[in-house]
Amino acid sequence: MKQLWLFNQINSDLQKVEKELTKFVETDYPILQESGIHLLTAGGKRLRPAFTLLAGKFYACSIEKLIPVAMALELIHMATLVHDDVVDASLTRRGRPTVKANWGNIVSVETGDYLLAKSLILISQIDHPEVSRILAEVSVEMCQGEIQQIKASFDVEQNLKQYYFRIKRKTALLISACCKLGALVSEAPRHQVWALGAYGHSLGMAFQIVDDVLDITAKPSEFGKPIGGDLRQGIMTLPMILALRSSPKGSRLHELLKKVDKSDAEVTETIHLIKATGAIDQSMQIVDAYISKAKRRLQDLPKVSSRKALEDLADFIAVRKF
Amino acid sequence: MKQLWLFNQINSDLQKVEKELTKFVETDYPILQESGIHLLTAGGKRLRPAFTLLAGKFYACSIEKLIPVAMALELIHMATLVHDDVVDASLTRRGRPTVKANWGNIVSVETGDYLLAKSLILISQIDHPEVSRILAEVSVEMCQGEIQQIKASFDVEQNLKQYYFRIKRKTALLISACCKLGALVSEAPRHQVWALGAYGHSLGMAFQIVDDVLDITAKPSEFGKPIGGDLRQGIMTLPMILALRSSPKGSRLHELLKKVDKSDAEVTETIHLIKATGAIDQSMQIVDAYISKAKRRLQDLPKVSSRKALEDLADFIAVRKF
Repeated sequence: MKQLWLFNQINSDLQKVEKELTKFVETDYPILQESGIHLLTAGGKRLRPAFTLLAGKFYACSIEKLIPVAMALELIHMATLVHDDVVDASLTRRGRPTVKANWGNIVSVETGDYLLAKSLILISQIDHPEVSRILAEVSVEMCQGEIQQIKASFDVEQNLKQYYFRIKRKTALLISACCKLGALVSEAPRHQVWALGAYGHSLGMAFQIVDDVLDITAKPSEFGKPIGGDLRQGIMTLPMILALRSSPKGSRLHELLKKVDKSDAEVTETIHLIKATGAIDQSMQIVDAYISKAKRRLQDLPKVSSRKALEDLADFIAVRKF
Repeated sequence: MKQLWLFNQINSDLQKVEKELTKFVETDYPILQESGIHLLTAGGKRLRPAFTLLAGKFYACSIEKLIPVAMALELIHMATLVHDDVVDASLTRRGRPTVKANWGNIVSVETGDYLLAKSLILISQIDHPEVSRILAEVSVEMCQGEIQQIKASFDVEQNLKQYYFRIKRKTALLISACCKLGALVSEAPRHQVWALGAYGHSLGMAFQIVDDVLDITAKPSEFGKPIGGDLRQGIMTLPMILALRSSPKGSRLHELLKKVDKSDAEVTETIHLIKATGAIDQSMQIVDAYISKAKRRLQDLPKVSSRKALEDLADFIAVRKF
C-alpha cells in the first residue's frame, strides 16, 4: 500500500482495512490466494476506502460499521481492475506485472469473480436498505462504460460527451459511491449524503482526467505502468480529443490515433503532437474546474477535520504524479 | 428456450420469466445487447427458474414475488456460463457459437459482469434478509470450484472426493439455492426450505454427473456441444476417474488422459477405452443413487402438483440426452 500523507488522520483505520482485507480474501486455493494477495500487495493508494472512512468520520461513525463498507468498495475496485486487465491486455499495473501477465486470462477472470463474490458477502451483511441497490446500479453502469470504451476504441470521431459519459462510469460513479455510502451508513442527513456523493463524483472525474493526462506526460518510474498505454489500446482520452479538435481532418495526428498497431516511434510521435497542441494544459484546466466544483460541494458540511482532508485530497488529485 | 414437457404446469409462468428476462437485459449498448440476447435465445432448459417457481408453488406464492428471484438465478447462471467459456475456451454451447466465439474474450468478460450486475439489481430488491447472503456465499463457492477445476486439469491422480467437491460448486449449490430461495421467499416452514435445498443439491449432483457422462456418450446433434470437450480440456470427470481406477498405472488410458493436446483420433480412442471399463454404467448407478436421495427429500413436503413435477424432473435427469 502506497501511504499518502493526506491520510494521516485515518492512517490507523486504513491499516485496519488493509489487515481485514488480507484476512478476508484468504482462501485454501493456492492460485486464488496468490493472485488475490498479489493484487493487494501491488499497492494502490486505497483511495476508495479512504473516501468511505473520511465520509463516515463527519458523523463520528464507528469504525466497525465503516470497515466492511470500505472493504467491499475496494474489492469491487480490485475486481474491475483484474477484469479490465483481460480487456485491456495490460501487462503491468502499479509498477508490477498484472494477474493476467503472471497467470493468464483464465485466472484473471476467476480472480475478479472471486473478489466480487467476496464483496457481495460483505454487502449482504451491511444493515442498510440502500447500500446493495446503489452498488448494483453502479456495477451495471461500470460495465456499460467499459463496453462503450471497447466500442469507441480507435474512433477519432468521438466527442467530449462520449468521453465524459465513459469516465463517469469508469471511475466517478464508484468514487461517488464510496463517499455516499460512508455517509449513508453513518446515518448522515440526506442532503449531506447527496453533497458527499456529488463531491466524489466531481473528484472522480478529475481523477480520471489526470490519469489520462499522466498516460501521456508521466515518468514511467513514477506512474507504475507504461506510458502511452491508452494510445496503444486506442482509448481516446480528453487530451487526444482536444488535440484532434485543433488539428485538421486527415492530419498526421488523426492518422496516428486511428492506427491500430503503433510502433514505439509512432507512440512517441503521437505524444509529441498532442503536447504541441496545448491539449494537456486545456485538460488540466478542466481538472481544475472539477476540483473546484468538488470542493464547493463540501461547503455546507460540518467543519471537522475530515472536511479539510477531503479538500486537501481534491487539491492533491490535480498535482499527483502517480 | 427448449420447452420441457415436465414444465407444463409452470409453462405460462416460465414464459413470463422469459419475457421479463429479455426486457431486463435490454440495453442501449449494441454489443452488450447482442451478446446478451444471443445468450438468452441460445436456449437452455431454464431449469433454474423452473426450480424456483416449482418450489414457490408448494406455498401458493405469488408469481410476482417469484419472478425476480427466478430471473436473478438464471442471470447468475448465464454470467458463469459466459465467463466459463473464456476459461474453457469452448466455442459452442447449446448447439450455437458461444459469446466468446462470436465476440472474443473481452466481450465475454464484460457480458458476464453485466449480467451479474443486473442480477444484483434484482437481488437488492428482494425483500428477504437471507437471499443476498445465500447467493453471495454460493458465488464464492462457485469461483472456488472453477479454480479447483483449472488446477486439477489433466491430473490423473485426483480422487473422487475432489471430483464431488468440484461438481458441488460447479452445479449443485446453485440448483440447491434455486429450490431453497423459491421456498424462502414463499415463507415456507424452515424444515421444508431445508428439504427443498437438499433435494436441489442431490439433483444438481446427478445433473452434473449426467452432463459429464454425456460428454462421452452423447450424440453431438442432441447434446448441443462437441463430444469429448472435457477430455480435450483435461477436466477429469467421474467416468474418467472410475475408468482410471480399473486400469493399471502407466496404462494407455493414463497416458491419453494426461496428454494436453489430443488429436481427434486420440479423443476417440480415449472414449473407447473409458467405455470398455464399464465406468459409464458405474457412473449412472451413482446418478441413480443421487436421484433416489433427491426424491426422498421430498417425502415430507405437501402432496401438491409441484411435488410430482419435482419427482418427475428428478427421473428425467437420469435419462436426458441433452
